[in-house]
Amino acid sequence: MNIAEKIRQIAADSRQASFAMARLSSGAKNDLLMNMATALMENTERLIEENKKDLAAAEKKGLSFAMLDRLMLNENRVKAMADGLCEVAALPDPVGEVTRMWKRPNGLMVGKMRIPLGVIGIIYEARPNVTADAAALCLKAGNAVILRGGSEAINSNVAIAGILRQEMAKAGIPQAALSVIPFTDREGVLEMLKQEEFIDLIIPRGGEGLIRFVVEHSKIPVIKHYKGVCHVFVDADADLDSAEKIIINAKTQRPGVCNALETLLIHKDIAETFVPRIYETLTGLKVEIRSDETFRKFAPRAKAATEDDWYAEFLDLILSAAIVEDIDDAIAHINKYSSLHTEAIITSNYANAQRFIREVNSGVVLVNASTRFSDGNQLGLGAEIGISTTKLHSFGPMGLEDLTTTKFIVYGDGQVRE
Amino acid sequence: MNIAEKIRQIAADSRQASFAMARLSSGAKNDLLMNMATALMENTERLIEENKKDLAAAEKKGLSFAMLDRLMLNENRVKAMADGLCEVAALPDPVGEVTRMWKRPNGLMVGKMRIPLGVIGIIYEARPNVTADAAALCLKAGNAVILRGGSEAINSNVAIAGILRQEMAKAGIPQAALSVIPFTDREGVLEMLKQEEFIDLIIPRGGEGLIRFVVEHSKIPVIKHYKGVCHVFVDADADLDSAEKIIINAKTQRPGVCNALETLLIHKDIAETFVPRIYETLTGLKVEIRSDETFRKFAPRAKAATEDDWYAEFLDLILSAAIVEDIDDAIAHINKYSSLHTEAIITSNYANAQRFIREVNSGVVLVNASTRFSDGNQLGLGAEIGISTTKLHSFGPMGLEDLTTTKFIVYGDGQVRE
Repeated sequence: MNIAEKIRQIAADSRQASFAMARLSSGAKNDLLMNMATALMENTERLIEENKKDLAAAEKKGLSFAMLDRLMLNENRVKAMADGLCEVAALPDPVGEVTRMWKRPNGLMVGKMRIPLGVIGIIYEARPNVTADAAALCLKAGNAVILRGGSEAINSNVAIAGILRQEMAKAGIPQAALSVIPFTDREGVLEMLKQEEFIDLIIPRGGEGLIRFVVEHSKIPVIKHYKGVCHVFVDADADLDSAEKIIINAKTQRPGVCNALETLLIHKDIAETFVPRIYETLTGLKVEIRSDETFRKFAPRAKAATEDDWYAEFLDLILSAAIVEDIDDAIAHINKYSSLHTEAIITSNYANAQRFIREVNSGVVLVNASTRFSDGNQLGLGAEIGISTTKLHSFGPMGLEDLTTTKFIVYGDGQVRE
Repeated sequence: MNIAEKIRQIAADSRQASFAMARLSSGAKNDLLMNMATALMENTERLIEENKKDLAAAEKKGLSFAMLDRLMLNENRVKAMADGLCEVAALPDPVGEVTRMWKRPNGLMVGKMRIPLGVIGIIYEARPNVTADAAALCLKAGNAVILRGGSEAINSNVAIAGILRQEMAKAGIPQAALSVIPFTDREGVLEMLKQEEFIDLIIPRGGEGLIRFVVEHSKIPVIKHYKGVCHVFVDADADLDSAEKIIINAKTQRPGVCNALETLLIHKDIAETFVPRIYETLTGLKVEIRSDETFRKFAPRAKAATEDDWYAEFLDLILSAAIVEDIDDAIAHINKYSSLHTEAIITSNYANAQRFIREVNSGVVLVNASTRFSDGNQLGLGAEIGISTTKLHSFGPMGLEDLTTTKFIVYGDGQVRE
């Protein structure tokens, strides 16, 4: 078989295995995940050995220290993977939940029941822990999963998946419900993206380049997470101490992540008081500020922003900042430049808080809280498979439920249509 | 401007108008729909005049009687369109509904709020009523809508949309929230399908050829409704009178629609009793039966089915029929050949009813009721924008809620992340 035939076969087997996965009881799925966790712990040494092969190859290729660090497995990291599996086992099972049920005039009882999506493909880069994390979430939601990790981690990924698959076999669950694409070149990804007959959803996890490549070539629906250009708007009535605390947290606590603050909007009525203060505080924390002209009236040493800066996800200690006329102007700015990820208002004005909540249609909209809460765990989803910045199927942080869909169920007693 | 530029402009204006649509109150949307209904009634004559141009051109082109009938507008049909608008006005507004809300340990109140999708593109064939029906549903759910109807109906569609747009202008709502693509060739559709920056969802309404063309070329998510190969499984414990009534209804009440019965599965234990009876009844109603070998043991005059017949959506008085060993065999047959549309079990066995409901993952699964109930109105959604046979975003009949998504809303009082 050539690569195309091999991948088609993996996808077809995965579809077949998905029927068995969909039928598994919650207890059986939880036992499986717990056994997988134990097996990973028991095989720590072997995993570290396999990972060393990847690390050696990566060093030879001259990968950056940051890349090598992401790739590396040690005892703590294997334990963290195992703990992750146990946490997913402890989450409630979304499958089979009847979210609503109603009665029709003809006596039919109609309801909506949560069911697995079927087969989910995960395409990711060099983090081997994604192999266990993503597989656990997909399996818990009753799906089969096909994993295609980065070439740098191939030995680690195959070893992790092998251990997990062994536990499936022991439990009498078809191993095809957890597959690894054994080809590490682009052709493997391209073939995978053609299997719309067998794969229901593709979730790419990685940089914008990977995501754009997948979206460009996929015939299968893709959950997209582009970038997070998160805004904080400080309203005229804001508590300025609270505003400062939230801005510092949102910008500096972990600047390299998608829910970090990128653009600060300040109401003109408080510009004279708040701009010098926040400018001093942020520059003291090594944040570079790129701002509009009005902002610079009150902070003359700030750099000027270019048009591109308003669209930028800096992922660094850089912040764009502008003065706005009022809440309408703030919402208009957000609507124009937003990446639909996360936006916050700092205000003590009830009406403006409600307007911001209603009118700003990003995945997560907050009042008086840091953008850093835009995260599946922080919002209480239990675990996160990704953050969607497009509106179809899911929008914002995605948990187990987002790996399911609903079907209509109808209980009748002989009804026919007139 | 060339066609590509023109369509890009329409899409960009539509995106801009979608922000205004999202902010409209339920009252304002309902008033708009009621005024549109009145305006259609008042312009009945003009609409019939414009429609005559389309009919004349279609006759010249030699379109079939069925096509001409679908295209034709008369007083009753204009009234039906207006009534449809009033019905949508009477439906509850899904936008702004908070479907859940919970409290986090740090005091954050986290909820999910329903919001419009944004801009929806509808691509349809020669039925002018879709112009009013689809527009009404999209607008009621707070979206902007771009309509691209078939070339045969262009004069009718432009006239209908013109009347609707006039009511938007009177109400101070941007007319760009309801646009008609004024180009009737394929290039217009192709350009529309490239506007992923501005259009959030494409819904094709029409035959399988249209849908496959749209899916093939769209960079925008598409809600797919392929075909309905609906199954009825008559279990060993079925009430045979009820089974016969349901089969007759499902197959013959309206054979040309997607929720009509196409494949009948009968438990082997009742084959000897039920096959001769249902064969006589159905052939008496002019239904041609194409069956497997076992079925023909009990109905020797039935035709033999080919492998293709099990995949076929006949849309005609033709039925494929097979004998199955048991419920497992029935579910396996359905999993193999299903179009994921609608399946029913006829049984008085509680355990089998529950197993069928749980294990058959089509959009609609029924117990002891006709497949003909697989329809948004019949299931109580109030109105139907289409039926999805793929699982992403929506699955099964789609109503107003399916034209929305949810965002996370978070009420804090100064929380920052540790």
